[in-house]
Amino acid sequence: MLTLAIDMDEVLADAAKKLKAWYYRDYGKTFEDEEVKGKDLKEAVIPEHFSLFRKYCNTPGFFRDLEVMPDAQEVLKELNKQYEVYIVSAAVEFPNSLKDKYDWIMENLSFITWRQICFCGSKSIVQTDIMIDDRVRNFKDFKGRKLLYSAHHNIFETNYERVNNWKEIRQLLL
Amino acid sequence: MLTLAIDMDEVLADAAKKLKAWYYRDYGKTFEDEEVKGKDLKEAVIPEHFSLFRKYCNTPGFFRDLEVMPDAQEVLKELNKQYEVYIVSAAVEFPNSLKDKYDWIMENLSFITWRQICFCGSKSIVQTDIMIDDRVRNFKDFKGRKLLYSAHHNIFETNYERVNNWKEIRQLLL
Repeated sequence: MLTLAIDMDEVLADAAKKLKAWYYRDYGKTFEDEEVKGKDLKEAVIPEHFSLFRKYCNTPGFFRDLEVMPDAQEVLKELNKQYEVYIVSAAVEFPNSLKDKYDWIMENLSFITWRQICFCGSKSIVQTDIMIDDRVRNFKDFKGRKLLYSAHHNIFETNYERVNNWKEIRQLLL
Repeated sequence: MLTLAIDMDEVLADAAKKLKAWYYRDYGKTFEDEEVKGKDLKEAVIPEHFSLFRKYCNTPGFFRDLEVMPDAQEVLKELNKQYEVYIVSAAVEFPNSLKDKYDWIMENLSFITWRQICFCGSKSIVQTDIMIDDRVRNFKDFKGRKLLYSAHHNIFETNYERVNNWKEIRQLLL
């Protein structure tokens, strides 16, 4: 069985949506698609607010109730029968997110067991046959097949095989 | 720089000591060296208490104040200059341990950064050049050099290069 590493934020869980909502709550600003093309959210706000998104991410509860990305549950459940699936999240950067992310997986992806979860700092020591991720930095030391999950910040990356949504993952891998 | 994965419980942190202490507190029983040779602690208690050690491990706070293994801080600090060190713990089995283990590392191994921490379920997707671990099951899919850290439960394993303490790790790797 092939091993398959799947990222959480922006792939399984819509963290960007909540970051935008919290920033709107605190500063009344919305983000146009155009201004975050090829950028992180923090690059679209004033420099004084750079660190704010990190603060949001380390707030207990932030990751607990994120929306699941469309079709992710259904497709992942099928993948889980044909692949050795691992949820791999660089969550250790935000230690207060660890339990929230675990609980989120248990609630939203109940077919996944604790054995299939990996919370790391750097993903450089994780090796599987396939990795689906929205951050090209996570592909740096990765030796398997890389599938870049489209997100506003990676829209100009041209060096990777790309998936735009979970329906495309189904077509490609099932 | 070679990559080096190091386990936490029974290698960096003395979890067994606290498990024994809690069991003594609850049931007044001590463990003789002889009765845990080649065995887990749970195999030395009555079957009705099998699951108790798992319960202890998932109690918030259990892993927060474990004793550091002798010489571990000093030797690891040196290793951290010559190797790309990662602390790799199968902590996801006990979700309430995640934050405690993170805080324990920050307090006791302050030269380690969040990038160097990996909390997984199975260690099968972790690949580094060297792994130090007390559980042979973690070596199953591991392709690098395996160093078995001696513990009561692995005393009869003969298939692995063995280290008995951190002084020996220093001699071998520094």
